Amino acid sequence: MREVAIAAYATTKFSRKSDRSLFELACEPCSNILRRHDITKEDIDAVIFSSCSFEQYSSSIISDMLGLSPKISHRTDNLCNSGTSAIVSAFSYISCGLCESALVVGAEMINTTGHRLTWDVSRGEYGLPVHWAALFAKAHMRKYGTTEEQMANISVRNHLNAAKNPDALFTKPVAIDEVLNSRKIVPPIKLLDCSSICNGSSAILLVSGEKARKIDNPIWIRGIGQRTNCASFSKIAGDLTSIIATRQAAADAYRMAAIEPSSLDVSELHDAFTILEILSYEDLNFANKGEGGKFVNNATMSVNPRGGILGCGHPIGATGVAQTAEIAMQLDGKAGLRQVKGCKTGLVQNLAAAGTSATILILGTD
Amino acid sequence: MREVAIAAYATTKFSRKSDRSLFELACEPCSNILRRHDITKEDIDAVIFSSCSFEQYSSSIISDMLGLSPKISHRTDNLCNSGTSAIVSAFSYISCGLCESALVVGAEMINTTGHRLTWDVSRGEYGLPVHWAALFAKAHMRKYGTTEEQMANISVRNHLNAAKNPDALFTKPVAIDEVLNSRKIVPPIKLLDCSSICNGSSAILLVSGEKARKIDNPIWIRGIGQRTNCASFSKIAGDLTSIIATRQAAADAYRMAAIEPSSLDVSELHDAFTILEILSYEDLNFANKGEGGKFVNNATMSVNPRGGILGCGHPIGATGVAQTAEIAMQLDGKAGLRQVKGCKTGLVQNLAAAGTSATILILGTD
Repeated sequence: MREVAIAAYATTKFSRKSDRSLFELACEPCSNILRRHDITKEDIDAVIFSSCSFEQYSSSIISDMLGLSPKISHRTDNLCNSGTSAIVSAFSYISCGLCESALVVGAEMINTTGHRLTWDVSRGEYGLPVHWAALFAKAHMRKYGTTEEQMANISVRNHLNAAKNPDALFTKPVAIDEVLNSRKIVPPIKLLDCSSICNGSSAILLVSGEKARKIDNPIWIRGIGQRTNCASFSKIAGDLTSIIATRQAAADAYRMAAIEPSSLDVSELHDAFTILEILSYEDLNFANKGEGGKFVNNATMSVNPRGGILGCGHPIGATGVAQTAEIAMQLDGKAGLRQVKGCKTGLVQNLAAAGTSATILILGTD
Repeated sequence: MREVAIAAYATTKFSRKSDRSLFELACEPCSNILRRHDITKEDIDAVIFSSCSFEQYSSSIISDMLGLSPKISHRTDNLCNSGTSAIVSAFSYISCGLCESALVVGAEMINTTGHRLTWDVSRGEYGLPVHWAALFAKAHMRKYGTTEEQMANISVRNHLNAAKNPDALFTKPVAIDEVLNSRKIVPPIKLLDCSSICNGSSAILLVSGEKARKIDNPIWIRGIGQRTNCASFSKIAGDLTSIIATRQAAADAYRMAAIEPSSLDVSELHDAFTILEILSYEDLNFANKGEGGKFVNNATMSVNPRGGILGCGHPIGATGVAQTAEIAMQLDGKAGLRQVKGCKTGLVQNLAAAGTSATILILGTD
């Protein structure tokens, strides 16, 4: 397996309002990468677009707007897990030798996603993501005594981190009482336990090991794990206190990277709801089973330094790319106010649809 | 680069009417593969879905319906060139070592595609595919003396082949006068110069070399070439008598497979319009430049034995998979009435949107 590294990354400001089209939004971080890094356009062997929008032939349109003529170009779509799915595709094209470089761009408009998955009749009346978040939360509270305050702590920490991130949708810290007193959506989930759909775009440039060794501080993709267990909520886990897809994907990623969770310095977790971050602590073996609720205040690593999905907003097809760009930036030592000192190994967790699918990436410096 | 082979393939009947959903249609060829080949469900490491439909999380839904829990699963979308884009993704996952097997399924409903690419203002009034087919035809006729009869011969030959294919949309041969006298759409393109959108589904199972050597007669993917030159018609070529994306992709595929076009025994070409097959003869170096019109009656290999897109119909996201399944079936010696005798090396050409992108695959037996 040929090695693959991240050579460049860029993320736009996430927002609820935009006067730009999806394609203009998608081009912005790509243009930043093409401008910043002495990469000629002829160097881009692939353009993979991650989005849930209904636009057709979108990767070709973006390539054309950027003046690129890639060998490989298509769109990848896998709901909230689209971004890292596109990254794993790009990794494979380079690792197998079909490409030397691949530009992955994720972009979403606030109005391009979010309709209900009507196929999944197993959800019954639980058609919206917040319904299954409430089920996870109730199950974990009942079995392990996890509290609403512990969940609220996640929101407080991630909003605080987002306040140091100029690209985040939410720019102000929130107090724990604000979270606990925010509007009840589906108890015990309150408004500030939920992430917010928004406009946003993020891009990363992957390159082969040979190309990576010619640049300063390449960020290597050391571990990859993916799993799709089902599409329907009823099959995801035995007792709703764990996301099996995360456990399986993490086992593969840790094995490929040949590391233990204790080696990680920083992580971006899929906190679309506060309870998901608590489940992730346990499913990724950061905390013992049942102790995720306590981990937020006892974390042995920096979690969601950009503010996570709760603080940054959730432009669906862009989220996994933005998470990966954040870990790359942290490992590159260029995260400004929110820089985690001395970090060398990081993890990305990207989920879709009630945790029915998961991607885990492990990144590292030389 | 680890070797990758096709271990199984299946295609549904293509039709204009169907009482099944997109997902039911997609599952049909997959179920045939899973039933026929003593492959356990645990063996399927990836499920890649090729479609232009607006359904979300579709690859997970199909995996769930089939009872599969793949590591990697997502949708790939690249208009008419979706199917082979998905195959190249699957090839890469296996070749780089992330997977040992990958199920690629393409499916489309007649009503899920076909809206105009409104972004491409360079088309001016030429918003429909038939407009650019007419421009290609006029340019080739003017420069090389290609005739409407030569184009009609393509339609006659492909409908004749389709009559031997029980899965084809069109089941009756057509005479050259029927083609020439069919309704004028955009002169010189007539109704029987055009393919027809339809419902259809096709699947192939790719496996690693190690797995392939345990099965009878694996069909190896020997060469891959892809190119996306632009999204807009105005940039595709200098003089509209050639599709540059095909030329560039073919050069890469021939080089990777280390063969000359003269070694090919059989091919599936992207005959969405008759003129495209004539351009392909030249762009793939089957015929000299300008002599594509004469090649149909002097072909040195079997072209479009299943009936091509003209005879089989065009279920957009399924087409590239069905083309590849046909060449695999031919090389496997199991094509029944339409079997090309003694064929050992075959080519697939899959295009999108006015030839702005192209994929070339070269398949071979041991």
